[in-house]
Amino acid sequence: MGFVKMSDDEATKILMLMGHRGFIWGPSPEIYNPVKGAYEIGPLGKEMKNNLERYMRKKFRKNNFWEVQCPLISPEIVWKASGHVERFFDYITQCSNPKCDNVHRVDTMLERMGFELTDVSQEGLQKLVNDNKIVCPDCEGELGPVATQNLMVTSKLGFPASEFILRPETATTTYLTFPRLHNYFRTSMPIYAFQMGYAFRNEISPRNMLLRTREFEQCEGQIFITPDQEIDFPLFEDNKDQHVVLWPAALQEKNDKTLLDLSIQEAVDQKILQKPAYAWLVYLAYDMVKGLGIPAENIRLRQHKQDEMAHYAHDAWDLEIKSKIYGWTEVCGVHDRGDYDLSNHHKMSKKKQLLVSGAKKGEKVVPHILEIAFGLGRLFFFALEQAFKFEEERNVLDLPIELTPVPFAVFPLMKKPKELQVVAKEIFDDLIENDFGAIMDMAGSIGKRYRRTEEIGVRYAFTIDHTTLEDDTLTIRSIEDMSQKRIKKADLIDIAAKLMHRKITYAEIEDLTVSE
Amino acid sequence: MGFVKMSDDEATKILMLMGHRGFIWGPSPEIYNPVKGAYEIGPLGKEMKNNLERYMRKKFRKNNFWEVQCPLISPEIVWKASGHVERFFDYITQCSNPKCDNVHRVDTMLERMGFELTDVSQEGLQKLVNDNKIVCPDCEGELGPVATQNLMVTSKLGFPASEFILRPETATTTYLTFPRLHNYFRTSMPIYAFQMGYAFRNEISPRNMLLRTREFEQCEGQIFITPDQEIDFPLFEDNKDQHVVLWPAALQEKNDKTLLDLSIQEAVDQKILQKPAYAWLVYLAYDMVKGLGIPAENIRLRQHKQDEMAHYAHDAWDLEIKSKIYGWTEVCGVHDRGDYDLSNHHKMSKKKQLLVSGAKKGEKVVPHILEIAFGLGRLFFFALEQAFKFEEERNVLDLPIELTPVPFAVFPLMKKPKELQVVAKEIFDDLIENDFGAIMDMAGSIGKRYRRTEEIGVRYAFTIDHTTLEDDTLTIRSIEDMSQKRIKKADLIDIAAKLMHRKITYAEIEDLTVSE
Repeated sequence: MGFVKMSDDEATKILMLMGHRGFIWGPSPEIYNPVKGAYEIGPLGKEMKNNLERYMRKKFRKNNFWEVQCPLISPEIVWKASGHVERFFDYITQCSNPKCDNVHRVDTMLERMGFELTDVSQEGLQKLVNDNKIVCPDCEGELGPVATQNLMVTSKLGFPASEFILRPETATTTYLTFPRLHNYFRTSMPIYAFQMGYAFRNEISPRNMLLRTREFEQCEGQIFITPDQEIDFPLFEDNKDQHVVLWPAALQEKNDKTLLDLSIQEAVDQKILQKPAYAWLVYLAYDMVKGLGIPAENIRLRQHKQDEMAHYAHDAWDLEIKSKIYGWTEVCGVHDRGDYDLSNHHKMSKKKQLLVSGAKKGEKVVPHILEIAFGLGRLFFFALEQAFKFEEERNVLDLPIELTPVPFAVFPLMKKPKELQVVAKEIFDDLIENDFGAIMDMAGSIGKRYRRTEEIGVRYAFTIDHTTLEDDTLTIRSIEDMSQKRIKKADLIDIAAKLMHRKITYAEIEDLTVSE
Repeated sequence: MGFVKMSDDEATKILMLMGHRGFIWGPSPEIYNPVKGAYEIGPLGKEMKNNLERYMRKKFRKNNFWEVQCPLISPEIVWKASGHVERFFDYITQCSNPKCDNVHRVDTMLERMGFELTDVSQEGLQKLVNDNKIVCPDCEGELGPVATQNLMVTSKLGFPASEFILRPETATTTYLTFPRLHNYFRTSMPIYAFQMGYAFRNEISPRNMLLRTREFEQCEGQIFITPDQEIDFPLFEDNKDQHVVLWPAALQEKNDKTLLDLSIQEAVDQKILQKPAYAWLVYLAYDMVKGLGIPAENIRLRQHKQDEMAHYAHDAWDLEIKSKIYGWTEVCGVHDRGDYDLSNHHKMSKKKQLLVSGAKKGEKVVPHILEIAFGLGRLFFFALEQAFKFEEERNVLDLPIELTPVPFAVFPLMKKPKELQVVAKEIFDDLIENDFGAIMDMAGSIGKRYRRTEEIGVRYAFTIDHTTLEDDTLTIRSIEDMSQKRIKKADLIDIAAKLMHRKITYAEIEDLTVSE
């Protein structure tokens, strides 16, 4: 894959810190026999994940996407219409040795054995297994035939019990709200919606921590749009000079690893991206991920090759992040789904509310769907993984202030006099009241507290000292260069707000020590 | 129940508006055969629900509770240890008429028929059915025997498939993280944690919109505490003069509907509440709900009577809200669970990490758990329901600014000149960037826009007019008295922030029209 893996030692250190510092625990439940691929998000992880969700919401809302929340449980007919009942499966093979019995996902098993897969059909995979006399990688037993295994997770509900499906994606449940959205937005197209929430897949082999799990969270946005609007799309015009880093299918097929850094206008001119609306959505995906503090060289957009693409897809690009631990991994898919979804649901439900007015007078058309689909767990994991920095005298979690679990710390310099704690608690309460993540810490020397909070990503520490009690000033210290400045207590919330919203930099804060 | 139901007309009007204004849609999926008790949260509902979650988080965080997120899927052993496998069931009876076949929850069925239940055991219910010759309420057919039905929802995962349980509550999954939390907080007790998330129950008859559904969201906080800390509890001291409205079991048993408005100190002195730590948690529940804009007369804390209480519970109070539509309903339970949970998990898992140091040197004890358990869907539904106000010339959604889906609206006075829109968009972006919910609306007359936004709870509307283009001022209008003031554009974010965080009232905003 051309991926130079970090040293196992460093990977282990990062994974250990994720556990030890309360980001990710598991597999869960740890005190019993854990469930494969089930993890807990600890206190700091949850603060960071909440911030990530807030960041994603803000990006979507700024672009006029509105959020919906749909049920996790749905009837089978929904997933018949969507194609999941028929097509959402993996090829598996089970070891015939009764002592082993293990089930393998055939494509992953063969890739791990070093095969390059060209024909991924059931017959193609069976042929490869037969021709190469592949045996069970766990026990070398004989493998059973290559079979299909649907990945949907089912559940029984009601009396008498009937079978329901735990949704394998959020997207389809958002599509189903279209008649409501259309009415709510007074039939004005395009309509922008997004949903963040759980989905379930019976993965053959959950692995790589949060990257492949059986319950996971997605964050998927949709534009419901008419074909003419896909071409005449004002948001494309407003952003046409914005750049994205593209790896088109044509280059991949030539084994050419060159990445193209192009404005979306150039990409459309060169016919690498087709429709302006879709090109804008590709840019939105890129822009959203860049803001997570992932270095630019670790982000690329990879186009699906013809044989990867769903039969109905007009175009599909994956946004990939180069993980320090796992190499290039998809975190977001941008899909031009055409009218596939709503025409299927229209056929199955016979509901004319799924149609909208077309360009011609009196014409009714099925809306097209452009989609941007993030894996929330992956975004969280990669943003975290990329942020650990091991310096000589300290470990730093260097996350953007929008994401870092606790941007601010409040330290009474010493436990006594008690007034130091009282002032610190007031400041802590005020920060929380203003929606800024904060902790108060009074255990250990101030130096130790700095070290401890740098490791969990605290960007600014406020220290209450004896001078505070005299003149209502206190110090602010930055994680970046470890320097300190003296500020007025009365200015603290204003300064915190400006730092949070990037209206000032730390360098721009006036230091009262200097000015006195 | 002493509950005067609102008129059916008004209830219908509220339920219709919830759908029409994009708060709650369903049952879902609407275009197919819907799933009983499955609902969608629409765009405005989701903004409000996000605000509710933010509000709950802030309240918990201010009191030093930290959030965790645990898996939805867990192995059966967890729920064996918790007692759910054995005891989490309803009594049901199935109609023996093959054309009907309906299943009824016995206690609800009998209550609806007007019976007052004294003995709710299987034998007691069977006796009542027999003695009164109860027949199927749907078809008058003969009813089958009273049987138990476990309410847990199961699912199959893995290859070969094995059975897992979709958690029936968040609480137990939080308990299981105790060894991690204990270590993370450097063994310093008490430990405060909370979790917001889904739980699943195979309810016999889902009903009353979000009040009784099969997938639902909880927000449950726990204090892990040693017995001596329950008595010597500083947060109780800090809040001992705070009042709560209590309906003790003793009064309920005498059919006395008097509510006691007491400080938690008085309640402890009068032995209505026992332990200071628990008393503080009862106050916290009350305080959190009061902040949602529910009128004080519609909130009470009702103590469980002896026969309602779980066998292990030391004390239990329900916080109830008097719904306009459904009458008094539990939205939160405050539970003194003693060492029941962790000693069961300790027995089942044999993990000594579940023990902590006791008061005596070298002693190891099982931590006790005090719990505060909110139904998030219910909080959301009741806060919304109580906020609709129908005035002569307008409908108002009168929600606290912390909860209202969209606190601010930005209106260009007219569509032209285009500059009005440009300024409006800048202000909209700036509001979103600062985490303040906002919409921009330019359709229809300004009067119509005021009406439309009052109905969805916009508290302040900023209007950009021709004067704005001349002198960079604009108007702010309040939902409360519909008055307007002129402010500087440059002050807008500061004013919005102060209104959001209740640092100023609308009345305190200086009106430049007047001062000129």
